[in-house]
Amino acid sequence: MKKILIPPSTEYTIGRDLLKQLQEICSGQRAILIADAAIKETYAADLAKAIDAELLSIPSGERTKNEEMKQNLLSQLFQLGCDKETLIIACGGGVTTDLVGFVASVYMRGLSLILIPTTLLAVVDASIGGKTAINTRYGKNLIGTFYHPKHIFADLNVLKTLPEKEWFNGLAEILKMGLIYKPAIWESFNFQDPECIFQAIEGKVEIVTQDPTEQSIRRILNFGHTLGHALELVSDYEMSHGEAVALGCAAEAHLSMQMGYLSQEDFEQVVRRFSQFSLELPKKYTRSKLLSALLHDKKKARSQTRFVLIDKIGHALAFEGAYCQAVTHAQLEPTLNWMEEWKSGR
Amino acid sequence: MKKILIPPSTEYTIGRDLLKQLQEICSGQRAILIADAAIKETYAADLAKAIDAELLSIPSGERTKNEEMKQNLLSQLFQLGCDKETLIIACGGGVTTDLVGFVASVYMRGLSLILIPTTLLAVVDASIGGKTAINTRYGKNLIGTFYHPKHIFADLNVLKTLPEKEWFNGLAEILKMGLIYKPAIWESFNFQDPECIFQAIEGKVEIVTQDPTEQSIRRILNFGHTLGHALELVSDYEMSHGEAVALGCAAEAHLSMQMGYLSQEDFEQVVRRFSQFSLELPKKYTRSKLLSALLHDKKKARSQTRFVLIDKIGHALAFEGAYCQAVTHAQLEPTLNWMEEWKSGR
Repeated sequence: MKKILIPPSTEYTIGRDLLKQLQEICSGQRAILIADAAIKETYAADLAKAIDAELLSIPSGERTKNEEMKQNLLSQLFQLGCDKETLIIACGGGVTTDLVGFVASVYMRGLSLILIPTTLLAVVDASIGGKTAINTRYGKNLIGTFYHPKHIFADLNVLKTLPEKEWFNGLAEILKMGLIYKPAIWESFNFQDPECIFQAIEGKVEIVTQDPTEQSIRRILNFGHTLGHALELVSDYEMSHGEAVALGCAAEAHLSMQMGYLSQEDFEQVVRRFSQFSLELPKKYTRSKLLSALLHDKKKARSQTRFVLIDKIGHALAFEGAYCQAVTHAQLEPTLNWMEEWKSGR
Repeated sequence: MKKILIPPSTEYTIGRDLLKQLQEICSGQRAILIADAAIKETYAADLAKAIDAELLSIPSGERTKNEEMKQNLLSQLFQLGCDKETLIIACGGGVTTDLVGFVASVYMRGLSLILIPTTLLAVVDASIGGKTAINTRYGKNLIGTFYHPKHIFADLNVLKTLPEKEWFNGLAEILKMGLIYKPAIWESFNFQDPECIFQAIEGKVEIVTQDPTEQSIRRILNFGHTLGHALELVSDYEMSHGEAVALGCAAEAHLSMQMGYLSQEDFEQVVRRFSQFSLELPKKYTRSKLLSALLHDKKKARSQTRFVLIDKIGHALAFEGAYCQAVTHAQLEPTLNWMEEWKSGR
């Protein structure tokens, strides 16, 4: 078992058999457990019983993470008469932690929050750093807050039960961490190894601690996500986040090469590693849809989409503290060509 | 002109002829000025032109501060293509600063925010301390965030043009500050005097600095507001905030006496001072509606409504750090009787 403190106020516990600690924290408090419907009847029901929490659920999937579901959850909390002393526990993947975190952050200006990530992606990425969000029709994660949970509990026993597709989802983020910041992860990569998971968590904690509100270095976590989010939006969220990030990382490595920063050798190594993912473009893909989706990327400044770029495996470019670089349509074109051909070439 | 620093990151400037400073801050940035419709064509239009900002507006009145208007503003910002570098400027009273502050806090997880309060109430109270909010059908300010503006600019020249009703609105909050924390304000009260306004601002800044997220002493600012908010809700926001707070303060002073903390002499002094307000119950008032509205008060804990109480003019009770006290229906009854009779007695 490991405990990691994430400033300003989060204690992250990862290991096995964490129930007793959670019980102690919840003892004597009214708690509402909000879980992904996929685990409601199983893991979440047992958990709610063990900590004496009321159980609510949200439908699975990225399309749940919207304004309507946020309003629905808030209404349920009002109807249950929840007050400022009520504890909110989010149990599920990144969709659940993002959505429930947002709800907890605005209900009476903020309730105490505990996250119980149950997917590899949420364990290594979504649960860390205080970002909450919902999607809008203009794009992914465009409405949200920075709001820090009091505790995160990640149960390694739960991860063992994940379907392969969910492992791939988390894997894409772990590989991304290897590409931008932790070359050791890239080299020694073995996704069965908890040590690899710890390293990915530590990488993210180091980055968000340096720059909690994403004014500078935290932007590098968006590597692979500028195209990745746009692809998810174009697919109407039929593409999983992991698949989109994997294709996004490969394409943004191509862009890094195209812009003269990354060697061809490193680029090819990136593509080889990500080949374990399907890397297929979504059925609804057209280039004009993708370009339109890029228009609402949050890194955009003065009408130009900005990308995080790498100059070698394990290192993102600083660009004098901006950690991202404006890219024109003309500069992006060869990368989009590559991405579209990649699909037909397989 | 005075400058007051409000931790963690707000600079409050109050005085006359502040335009030049605002121009310097906005220079070279895209800015959206969101103003109360009542001042859109006059003050706000001139201001927007002077700082080269795009101008949006919201309808006047407390009923505007709702989910629908929040969504409407967010959609307008998306349609205008606002990005994380866009500056949001809220110009108007407390409704405007609360609503626009909330919108700025969740758009792409937070845009830089400047408040230009144009009512006495917003100058001395609503603009200070980072609270943003919208109302729900369950009650007032039940959804919101803590989010700090970079700057607040209060122009004393604008205050001079306020209608009398707006002066009374702010007056109620200034008197409340005198009751709970700054006896000097209560004694020397002259609402034409900027010094009195400065003192009220300083009182609020001292309190929110000690307890930014309202875990303890900041609760005393809710004196008069537990009944006040419930009255506003019962009136369907036909009652102004100042009128509701004035009646709330008188009634909660009665409760403080009833619970054995405040002398009858002090209570009578409070009532005399607040008699300059109409202190009428809203037309739609019934006791059961009021009790039902109290159920969603944010200070509520374990199903009991809690009240801030005073033991003399200028001092709220600490209750071992809770700064509020559970009150049963039976204990509240004499105060509700007093409040209802007060109406018919006038």
